Amino acid sequence: MSFSKRMDRVKASGIRAVQKRIASKPEVISFAAGLPDPNLYPLDDYKAALDSLMAERARPAFSYGLTKGYGPLLDLLVRRMREKEGVECTKDNLCILSGSQQGLGLAALMFVDEGDVIITENPSYLGAINACRPYGPEFVGVDTDDDGMVIEDVERVLRENPRAKMIYVIPNFQNPTGKAWTLERRKRFMEVVSQYDVMVLEDNPYGEIRFKGEHLPCLKTLDRKDQVIYLGSFSKIMAPGLRVAWVCAAPEVAAMTERMKETLDLQSPEFTQHFVVSYLEKFDIEPHIAKIQATYKARSDLMLEMIRRHFPASVKYTEPEGGMFLWLELPGGLDADALLDEALEAGVAYIPGESFYANNGPKNTIRMNFTTVSEEQIVKGMEILGNVLKRHIQ
Amino acid sequence: MSFSKRMDRVKASGIRAVQKRIASKPEVISFAAGLPDPNLYPLDDYKAALDSLMAERARPAFSYGLTKGYGPLLDLLVRRMREKEGVECTKDNLCILSGSQQGLGLAALMFVDEGDVIITENPSYLGAINACRPYGPEFVGVDTDDDGMVIEDVERVLRENPRAKMIYVIPNFQNPTGKAWTLERRKRFMEVVSQYDVMVLEDNPYGEIRFKGEHLPCLKTLDRKDQVIYLGSFSKIMAPGLRVAWVCAAPEVAAMTERMKETLDLQSPEFTQHFVVSYLEKFDIEPHIAKIQATYKARSDLMLEMIRRHFPASVKYTEPEGGMFLWLELPGGLDADALLDEALEAGVAYIPGESFYANNGPKNTIRMNFTTVSEEQIVKGMEILGNVLKRHIQ
Repeated sequence: MSFSKRMDRVKASGIRAVQKRIASKPEVISFAAGLPDPNLYPLDDYKAALDSLMAERARPAFSYGLTKGYGPLLDLLVRRMREKEGVECTKDNLCILSGSQQGLGLAALMFVDEGDVIITENPSYLGAINACRPYGPEFVGVDTDDDGMVIEDVERVLRENPRAKMIYVIPNFQNPTGKAWTLERRKRFMEVVSQYDVMVLEDNPYGEIRFKGEHLPCLKTLDRKDQVIYLGSFSKIMAPGLRVAWVCAAPEVAAMTERMKETLDLQSPEFTQHFVVSYLEKFDIEPHIAKIQATYKARSDLMLEMIRRHFPASVKYTEPEGGMFLWLELPGGLDADALLDEALEAGVAYIPGESFYANNGPKNTIRMNFTTVSEEQIVKGMEILGNVLKRHIQ
Repeated sequence: MSFSKRMDRVKASGIRAVQKRIASKPEVISFAAGLPDPNLYPLDDYKAALDSLMAERARPAFSYGLTKGYGPLLDLLVRRMREKEGVECTKDNLCILSGSQQGLGLAALMFVDEGDVIITENPSYLGAINACRPYGPEFVGVDTDDDGMVIEDVERVLRENPRAKMIYVIPNFQNPTGKAWTLERRKRFMEVVSQYDVMVLEDNPYGEIRFKGEHLPCLKTLDRKDQVIYLGSFSKIMAPGLRVAWVCAAPEVAAMTERMKETLDLQSPEFTQHFVVSYLEKFDIEPHIAKIQATYKARSDLMLEMIRRHFPASVKYTEPEGGMFLWLELPGGLDADALLDEALEAGVAYIPGESFYANNGPKNTIRMNFTTVSEEQIVKGMEILGNVLKRHIQ
């Protein structure tokens, strides 16, 4: 038995090893999660949506449907893309996905040849990097400053890499750093990439969870040459257990997505797609999203307050305007992975940031999640973590 | 914008073009479907299972879970594989899939290098062939007789093709022919393949829909060298709109499946997995399966009776012992695809068999589905089709 050569390129996931270490200490306060808060699901509304699904469309919901997705859901997304993002599209631009991760897996399959160059923010979401790895690209990371990807570096990397195939970005409240790009930076980025034959994979799972500042247009809105493959998702605003997401892209990309998705899983479940439609038809999701925003804002603010109160002043941190994460940078020389054992022993967990780099990353960074911890846990856990850090930082 | 070289190998699907022609005539009696009968879904039981899910496990059902699958569902499959198939396995052998199609897509990604040889039954399920195509294998078809894959041909093809990587088979009530392999043939097949370093991809979506004869062991049961990757599914016994299926294979294959699935969609929806568990815990599925079997048997028997009554004697046909399809072979020289327009005009639809061959197939075959048509439609539609055929066959 021998796997394909592709499988030689698959690496053991660093995060997975970390998660196992953390899972062995279930009693700790965990800032290591990457999940929405399950306590915010509007279960009564979901129950009503299910009841109405069973009463009105049970047989089609349990049957096969089209690979592209359930028609009324696609209609609804055409409207949502216009109203929420200012993107004018039709069903020809769309395909339903089983989570945005499927959009990453499909983009890798459809676009990446061996030796192609994939440009990512540095650090970035590991799931995108791992989806590309089997096909043998090179990864080039570009640093971000407080405004977004550093444009001069984007230009240089594009100029130096004629095989640059795709730029993977999360402009809103990035996983892992929580950073959001400014409007100016978005515009400049699109100006630069429009001069190259390169695709932009825009992953926007957190876009609707902005809890500070103004909504900014997504890159797809600024996309004049149909270079942007936009991924949206219901995972963070409804529930990740549904795995309902979508791609919005040039018609030929959407059509190829549909064709390749057919080979990967035929289609996303009709049942979960019908459920989303049933819920969105019956209820206004906006007050629910507002509640998520308010809750996460309170936790993020509290976490920042605790950082200021308990952490050594030399620890740098991002101040997210949305999403689920913030990012710590410890003084150089410290190893967040080595510190994790001490933190677990003291009663808190986090994800060392090194795992979020395609190539070698610095050892002194940490991803902190604030969505699945209570305010009480934040107060208690951040003090513990502060004490751990103080032992190593003067 | 340029797709990967892999995409050059993707062919337009013949079946899709046929389906479009058929869809333009929605009023015809269609034997072209490939679906379970939605009227057989036990909707009251499903409703009760959903209610109990919402009452007892709503929050985890809407949340993220493990890529490998929901623990209680895996436990239940360990028991089911033992009780129904006589396969002793543990969770280490299993991974939940989003439909068996995902098992095909993953096997292609994990095993197929350019120039590898994939052996299929001739004809076979197109979805498996299409899943492999992007990776550039050669396909070699092996004919089946009434007992299963012709063993001498399997031996010869394995001998002649040192790069034979995988044999894809559907030993129970194959799509498209409806044929099932005899026990003797299954044993002989496994004896032969055990002498080669080749994987067997056993697709068994129809195994539980046997309505004549005795249950026969699957190839996985006869697998002494862990060569068989077994795919099972709830699509035909519960509902395809759930997309809940599973792979049972050697631990290293199951582990790599999990790892690659993580890059493709993170995990199958927790919600649908919880639903399957909720239903199977609350209800005995066996009477429901018995009802499906009885219904399909009646329709298959009636279709066979109408073939004998209305079709020219020179039309050959399979007599399925289960599943959803039977297969017609018209006299040589007739073109089932060309005849389809005439059949649609007369009021009936079917799928020409040519599309089910990896390489060039004969033009004189037809796949007939008997699961989504009523007895009345079978009586009427088969007479119409008989009349169309009589115009061309003396």
